[in-house]
Amino acid sequence: MGFMAILTTQKSKSVAQVSEEKLIEIIVRSLGRACPPFPAGPGGDCAIIPQTEKAKFRVSTIDSVILGRHFDSSCSGSLAGKKLVERNLSDLAAAGAKPKDALLSLFIGPNVNLAWLKDFAQAVGRTASRAGMNINGGDVCRVQAGQFSATLFVQGFSQRILTRTTCQAGDRLFVTGELGGSLLGHHCHFRARVAEGLWLAQQKSTTACTDLSDGMLKDLPGLIGKKWDAMVDTEKLPLRPAAHQMAKKDGRSALEHALQDGEDYELLFCVKAKDASSFAQKFQKQFPQTRLTEIGFIKKGKGLVRSLKDKQPLLGKGFSHFA
Amino acid sequence: MGFMAILTTQKSKSVAQVSEEKLIEIIVRSLGRACPPFPAGPGGDCAIIPQTEKAKFRVSTIDSVILGRHFDSSCSGSLAGKKLVERNLSDLAAAGAKPKDALLSLFIGPNVNLAWLKDFAQAVGRTASRAGMNINGGDVCRVQAGQFSATLFVQGFSQRILTRTTCQAGDRLFVTGELGGSLLGHHCHFRARVAEGLWLAQQKSTTACTDLSDGMLKDLPGLIGKKWDAMVDTEKLPLRPAAHQMAKKDGRSALEHALQDGEDYELLFCVKAKDASSFAQKFQKQFPQTRLTEIGFIKKGKGLVRSLKDKQPLLGKGFSHFA
Repeated sequence: MGFMAILTTQKSKSVAQVSEEKLIEIIVRSLGRACPPFPAGPGGDCAIIPQTEKAKFRVSTIDSVILGRHFDSSCSGSLAGKKLVERNLSDLAAAGAKPKDALLSLFIGPNVNLAWLKDFAQAVGRTASRAGMNINGGDVCRVQAGQFSATLFVQGFSQRILTRTTCQAGDRLFVTGELGGSLLGHHCHFRARVAEGLWLAQQKSTTACTDLSDGMLKDLPGLIGKKWDAMVDTEKLPLRPAAHQMAKKDGRSALEHALQDGEDYELLFCVKAKDASSFAQKFQKQFPQTRLTEIGFIKKGKGLVRSLKDKQPLLGKGFSHFA
Repeated sequence: MGFMAILTTQKSKSVAQVSEEKLIEIIVRSLGRACPPFPAGPGGDCAIIPQTEKAKFRVSTIDSVILGRHFDSSCSGSLAGKKLVERNLSDLAAAGAKPKDALLSLFIGPNVNLAWLKDFAQAVGRTASRAGMNINGGDVCRVQAGQFSATLFVQGFSQRILTRTTCQAGDRLFVTGELGGSLLGHHCHFRARVAEGLWLAQQKSTTACTDLSDGMLKDLPGLIGKKWDAMVDTEKLPLRPAAHQMAKKDGRSALEHALQDGEDYELLFCVKAKDASSFAQKFQKQFPQTRLTEIGFIKKGKGLVRSLKDKQPLLGKGFSHFA
């Protein structure tokens, strides 16, 4: 199959050739079995879902992908659709919630390629289904030529939730997977840590959790809050090979990439000190394929991320500390 | 206070002057008491809401307002924000659900006026609060200059829900309020029929319901489905004075405007024939301020809207039937 770009100059291949009703029909069909039947699915004023969950909490978030911002015009519909769903699932994973419902809002310019859009919707449906989540409905708006964006609302349920700013002094800091250089491919190919997040929420030793979307140096302060400092052993940070590749190209260190690049979509979380070693063993037994690294600990402080070696704050932009 | 447009050429007045963190802080503050405290409100990866509703159904929808499409650059932030919330509430009203949660996604260009945005967010918060609904969180994306859109996910709960395509032969057709000419003002000043929808869902005599957003001729077929025809007494249709005003200007009849204009945000619903007269009395006792009109009935058919007078289908575009 040849390359198919999101925008087309051929009107016969564009969404402009179909009516709004037909366009919605095509999208719903492409979403496939992720769409439940009416009235829980598309076709009414609202999605109407019987309440069967007995979980204590419902957990929801909303996130978008915008052409030109979160993906470019050379990105396939399949990758853009997958990314939209996985980004949202990563937030549910951070809260330890089981994905359940979703609504999809699309802004579509007249020169969007209809085949690209089908590819996109199929990927949204496939990725949602694999996570056990329905696409219960949504909305389509026509926008100006050259524009496309998709916003997904997702909702999950949990008996015990994980959140930020709930860690305590002494807690050990763990991270899943590897960090840095996401732009070389990971940002379109990752799978959200949904199973890991669900399992973490069931462990009483887990005290706080977030997902890494903006980079460790932005997300770690969000995790610990203003009353604690995070002491990080930078030598232990699990560097993605792509972080080294990017370092070779741009002269910044692989560590800088790991701390600042963003789009890792890994889980960063705290575990009670007394449970830390048995925790790591249990985790690896449960998820033998998922790399787990203990990278530091929490102590009283004021919201800083500091180097374990010399106690100095790890700074963003330019990384004077590493110079 | 002078006129304030959404877009500004003065950088000092635009959102470009503030960081993303600061922008979110300003929006959250403007939303006011509609935002519950963390973790049910902003500040985490997700909104985490304790499940206290015992209702049988949860009901959700998602809808947007886009600059240049749903409102123009002369529209105040206050009106645009109100419209966003009321549009979504109108869908919940059609399902007979009690509004509860919401998430707000904003796409903001760098030349959006910060004061306009505050005005917008205040209106979103105020309108949500008045309906008993929280704004539990959301997302902000920077987009290109000249662009602004807002997408709202809303969720409500209901013990008995109303939906489309569930009417029966003989059912009487009712509509709230007045129809036509919405663009002359109603489309920015309406209040969604939430209380009426909730009450309708509690009446066993109500068999199906929708809200009028695209105009009677588009929405009525959606209400009845493919197995029934709607017989409409066009002389009984409650015409909004603005429908007559528009008719004077453009030479189309006020009736055409009432059938086709859209953005009425009134409830259109079916009631069992044997209950129709006592129903109307009960409704008017409950809602003395809300005009209620019986406009026709349902019979076996194939999804057509027909004139009660001559049994002919009421046609859209050009209205050859009325010529």
